[in-house]
Amino acid sequence: MRVAVLAHEKFPDRAKTAVGLLRYSDYEIEAVLDRDNAGSRVSDFVPDVQDAPVVAGMADVPEVDALVIGIAPIGGGFDESWRPDVTAALERGCDLVSGLHYFLEDDEEFARLAAENGCDIWDVRNPPDDLTVAKGVADRVDAEVVLTVGTDCSVGKMTATMELLEAARERGADVGFVPTGQTGIMIEGWGTPIDRIVSDFAAGAVEEMILERGDDHDYLFVEGQGSIVHPAYSPVTDAILHGSMADRLVLCHEAGREVVHGYEEFDLPPIDEYVDLYEDLARPVHETEVVAGALNTRSIEDDETARGAVETYGDLLDAPATDPVRFDPDEVVDALL
Amino acid sequence: MRVAVLAHEKFPDRAKTAVGLLRYSDYEIEAVLDRDNAGSRVSDFVPDVQDAPVVAGMADVPEVDALVIGIAPIGGGFDESWRPDVTAALERGCDLVSGLHYFLEDDEEFARLAAENGCDIWDVRNPPDDLTVAKGVADRVDAEVVLTVGTDCSVGKMTATMELLEAARERGADVGFVPTGQTGIMIEGWGTPIDRIVSDFAAGAVEEMILERGDDHDYLFVEGQGSIVHPAYSPVTDAILHGSMADRLVLCHEAGREVVHGYEEFDLPPIDEYVDLYEDLARPVHETEVVAGALNTRSIEDDETARGAVETYGDLLDAPATDPVRFDPDEVVDALL
Repeated sequence: MRVAVLAHEKFPDRAKTAVGLLRYSDYEIEAVLDRDNAGSRVSDFVPDVQDAPVVAGMADVPEVDALVIGIAPIGGGFDESWRPDVTAALERGCDLVSGLHYFLEDDEEFARLAAENGCDIWDVRNPPDDLTVAKGVADRVDAEVVLTVGTDCSVGKMTATMELLEAARERGADVGFVPTGQTGIMIEGWGTPIDRIVSDFAAGAVEEMILERGDDHDYLFVEGQGSIVHPAYSPVTDAILHGSMADRLVLCHEAGREVVHGYEEFDLPPIDEYVDLYEDLARPVHETEVVAGALNTRSIEDDETARGAVETYGDLLDAPATDPVRFDPDEVVDALL
Repeated sequence: MRVAVLAHEKFPDRAKTAVGLLRYSDYEIEAVLDRDNAGSRVSDFVPDVQDAPVVAGMADVPEVDALVIGIAPIGGGFDESWRPDVTAALERGCDLVSGLHYFLEDDEEFARLAAENGCDIWDVRNPPDDLTVAKGVADRVDAEVVLTVGTDCSVGKMTATMELLEAARERGADVGFVPTGQTGIMIEGWGTPIDRIVSDFAAGAVEEMILERGDDHDYLFVEGQGSIVHPAYSPVTDAILHGSMADRLVLCHEAGREVVHGYEEFDLPPIDEYVDLYEDLARPVHETEVVAGALNTRSIEDDETARGAVETYGDLLDAPATDPVRFDPDEVVDALL
């Protein structure tokens, strides 16, 4: 599918969805819309992902099948300055894909234009309405379930999951991906946004995904969210930990992170406390173990220092560790398969 | 307000909302609807609460202002066998109060009948729509925050909270009540159903209640939900633990309970593991301590055996314990104030 990705004024650093799609999705991305960077190319900013021109608006986009909203502003609202591009896309017959909390299909103008031009609107964050409580049966699937958990939000859990998934598949392992957030869902074309599910049904929504895919693969890699000690997002983390009944955990961390992102008065506990907490909390529902670590070293410039940080992290975990974007993931993949 | 309470086929043991209302609410309960027990009285089953006849359906109910749905089945669905009673109530001009996940106001027939007969429908579990993420500031209120946590769902957390609240108020303590579930909300006429809040905002919804009431009282007693190791409901528990930033915890348990209610293949961990888990999970957000225990001894007939069970429970906790329904709560109240 050929798509254009809207990331006005935020590409690439504050457009985590756009960058995730460029890096991991099967979409053919024909253009990125960012009026602040029009005339440049993706490769001017982000190496090692598919390249595309950065353009000012839909008028400069070649023929595409869909327009994807590639930014997720705080609060998830729709920015009215994007409206001309969205209506232009619909008038050209393009489908819409969006992970905003504001559902595009509920917008009167977009709904009307979509109907007139035969376009589909996929609001990724609009959850299915047939969800219910978990039954505690996710461990009955054939697949071994591997879950990335974190010391905080925004430490790179989705990236780690995708990198380890690709490395495992390169070895010939049959691995399915279970996305739990908007970017993962767009990449996979399937999945449930756990942060949008009412808390009574959140573990059940995870379980349902495990049951749906768990007998089709030898392994399922589940994308984690948040952190179990986050002042706001821990219920999402907990729902994924208990709902997935994960067999193995990968603890993801960002080098140098010492306080909770956006909640700076909260210190992160020591790494070994995370290991105990995740394992102890999981155990009564399903015994599990932190078998590996993924350290995001993007803040460290030279490779040697980064390697040292990874080594220290592995020692703290007493398990193999890597930065799967920067270094060889082999030892970590060994621990997962 | 005079009400009838619907509890078909489940009164009293599986009708925890009905029993909670009989025990703690200011409603004048004129009848309990349970077709399996029609012809009996509440006092045949439950001592020490307001008495009322148990009837087969609305036809046998005297004049009332409202029909309250007094059962909360797993999943919170509406049982179609209740429809004739609900429509009969609306046709008589009664309001509806319901804590089901299925919103009665969204039911076409109920909405139409309510409009025709001037009835209000209060879906207690229908949350406010202006919620957002927690900021991690619940500890800034003047009140000491006391939270009841549990080893499982349906062990008597709400009952313990209400009993300890009454005992504390009898001593002259200025204690506010923070309800987090349907029964508590019905009793208090205020509160947010945390199990119905999207998981991203669940801790924030708790925090908002603490901020709203926390400077008006010396103490806030927060009603806990579920259990931190429940296969389905743990995200709700976690949201309340982290969102409330509780200063003191009361661990609630039912004597003899060994497996998760409704999930019998899951063993409950030993009591001391719960203490560690709740304290360890809370600590990175807000340091707290299990300072007392509440043991529900309803399954034990003779008082001496029950007293022994309470004593053993206190020893396991290394803290004062009581069955606040059956025995003196003094030592436990001492630990909370």
